[in-house]
Amino acid sequence: MDENSKPALWVHETHKEMVSLGFKVEKTLFSGRSPFQKVDIVKTAGHGNMLLNDGIVMLSEKDEFIYHEMIAHVPLFVHPDPRRVLIIGGGDGGTAREVLKHERVENVVMVEIDRMVVDACRRYMPSVSSAADDPRLELLFDDGVKYVTNTNKTFDVAIIDSTDPVGPAAPLFDQAFYQNLAGRLSPDGIMITQSESPFYDPDIQLSMFSNQRPWFQKLHMYLFSTMTYPGGLWSFGFASKKPCPIADFKKDRAETANFRTRYYNAQIHRAAFALPEFVKKSLSHLLDPVPA
Amino acid sequence: MDENSKPALWVHETHKEMVSLGFKVEKTLFSGRSPFQKVDIVKTAGHGNMLLNDGIVMLSEKDEFIYHEMIAHVPLFVHPDPRRVLIIGGGDGGTAREVLKHERVENVVMVEIDRMVVDACRRYMPSVSSAADDPRLELLFDDGVKYVTNTNKTFDVAIIDSTDPVGPAAPLFDQAFYQNLAGRLSPDGIMITQSESPFYDPDIQLSMFSNQRPWFQKLHMYLFSTMTYPGGLWSFGFASKKPCPIADFKKDRAETANFRTRYYNAQIHRAAFALPEFVKKSLSHLLDPVPA
Repeated sequence: MDENSKPALWVHETHKEMVSLGFKVEKTLFSGRSPFQKVDIVKTAGHGNMLLNDGIVMLSEKDEFIYHEMIAHVPLFVHPDPRRVLIIGGGDGGTAREVLKHERVENVVMVEIDRMVVDACRRYMPSVSSAADDPRLELLFDDGVKYVTNTNKTFDVAIIDSTDPVGPAAPLFDQAFYQNLAGRLSPDGIMITQSESPFYDPDIQLSMFSNQRPWFQKLHMYLFSTMTYPGGLWSFGFASKKPCPIADFKKDRAETANFRTRYYNAQIHRAAFALPEFVKKSLSHLLDPVPA
Repeated sequence: MDENSKPALWVHETHKEMVSLGFKVEKTLFSGRSPFQKVDIVKTAGHGNMLLNDGIVMLSEKDEFIYHEMIAHVPLFVHPDPRRVLIIGGGDGGTAREVLKHERVENVVMVEIDRMVVDACRRYMPSVSSAADDPRLELLFDDGVKYVTNTNKTFDVAIIDSTDPVGPAAPLFDQAFYQNLAGRLSPDGIMITQSESPFYDPDIQLSMFSNQRPWFQKLHMYLFSTMTYPGGLWSFGFASKKPCPIADFKKDRAETANFRTRYYNAQIHRAAFALPEFVKKSLSHLLDPVPA
């Protein structure tokens, strides 16, 4: 990230030495170094405020609704009665905000390793972290891997809202973590994982779904769009002890929800599980087929 | 486009002064100026060869299959018996290549204004323009607007594979063009249009669908991913005299086709018509509802 305050300041994220995505910046709002990473929040010209960890774009106010609606509403409209939700990561608060829109959710435990991300987002992205003071939210500043190993709590839905498998988030992609997490899920439990770009990261996807497969009855991947990650097409893993994301989709509940969405709807829910041929070719030996 | 041959040469496309997309370049293969635009083909580090018109990325060998499969197979697997196809633009040859995979297609008229694009792609993107010598293809170097005004031919499917509504392609977004084109379609005729980014170009979409609406019985929009256009999410318009893209989808024909695809399949066909809430909010007054 170029921090010189020139008239035409841009942040540029380069991925795999082949593609770069740049956003015009009006000014830097926050810049700090936590024990885990560099944390920056900039005001962009066209994408609202934007969070970068170690120079990698995490989210922008312009399009964060897509990521957060899709990570939260898909499992919460599949689980028959989601009351207890675990979020690993998600320090910006957007995932918790969407989860807490569901009235039947009674308790959310959010385990974020980096307090600086939470504090910076509460200050400079208040629309994202708007549910931070919800009394149903229990926020722990801790290592998610350690928490899952040590807790004796059980969850209906667990959302792994992690960064990429480098740095602090790397152990969140390991088989031991998935095994421990599966042990913390209730019989209808669902785990959602940030599962990277089908275009640029098929190897990470292969590895993470291979690591998840032994511990879950159902394993799927679903897709959504993002303006701020390279390639524009991104994915979440859907792993469950029992529910199928299509056959057990609570369409009526989704269509009569008492909150509005900007990306998610019942048609998008089903459509997100339709995978392009090149993705099926890479992953279908690990994933369950999607019912028609 | 930076044409200096430095060790780390990149092409950067900046959109609306807020976002830029860059690709690492190994070398420039072709650079020319036609009567209509600047035409460059570069060899990139990670995206194969890439065509740029006036510095705007048109396609890369890495992901062109998505655009071209989606522009061609969606209408050709909806029309009951597509025999005569019109392509306006599409000089790279990718749309014609996919159209000509359909055995029942007897004749394709392709009207491209810029011979330099066709010649450069035949030389430097042979896998894209691979159907250029198919005897069913009639290639005219002409103005598509003029052609549609003057021809007395009738087409089952017309594909407007245009650049953006600036420069040579601008009249392809006008109401008069859509009216004339509708007059050249057979009773089950379908027109597909390149309809820009739902994220960055909602105003263009509003304008073009308003201009199409009076002349077509059915009007829809469908979505696909692209690695090389800003925002990553892109759209095509589906306008028809009669067929519905979902109710009249020839699923059996798609599933038993005698050619392979890398993005398109029957699930993707249906999924592509599911629109996010923010898109529906912007366009649903112009578009027909999608059957469940």
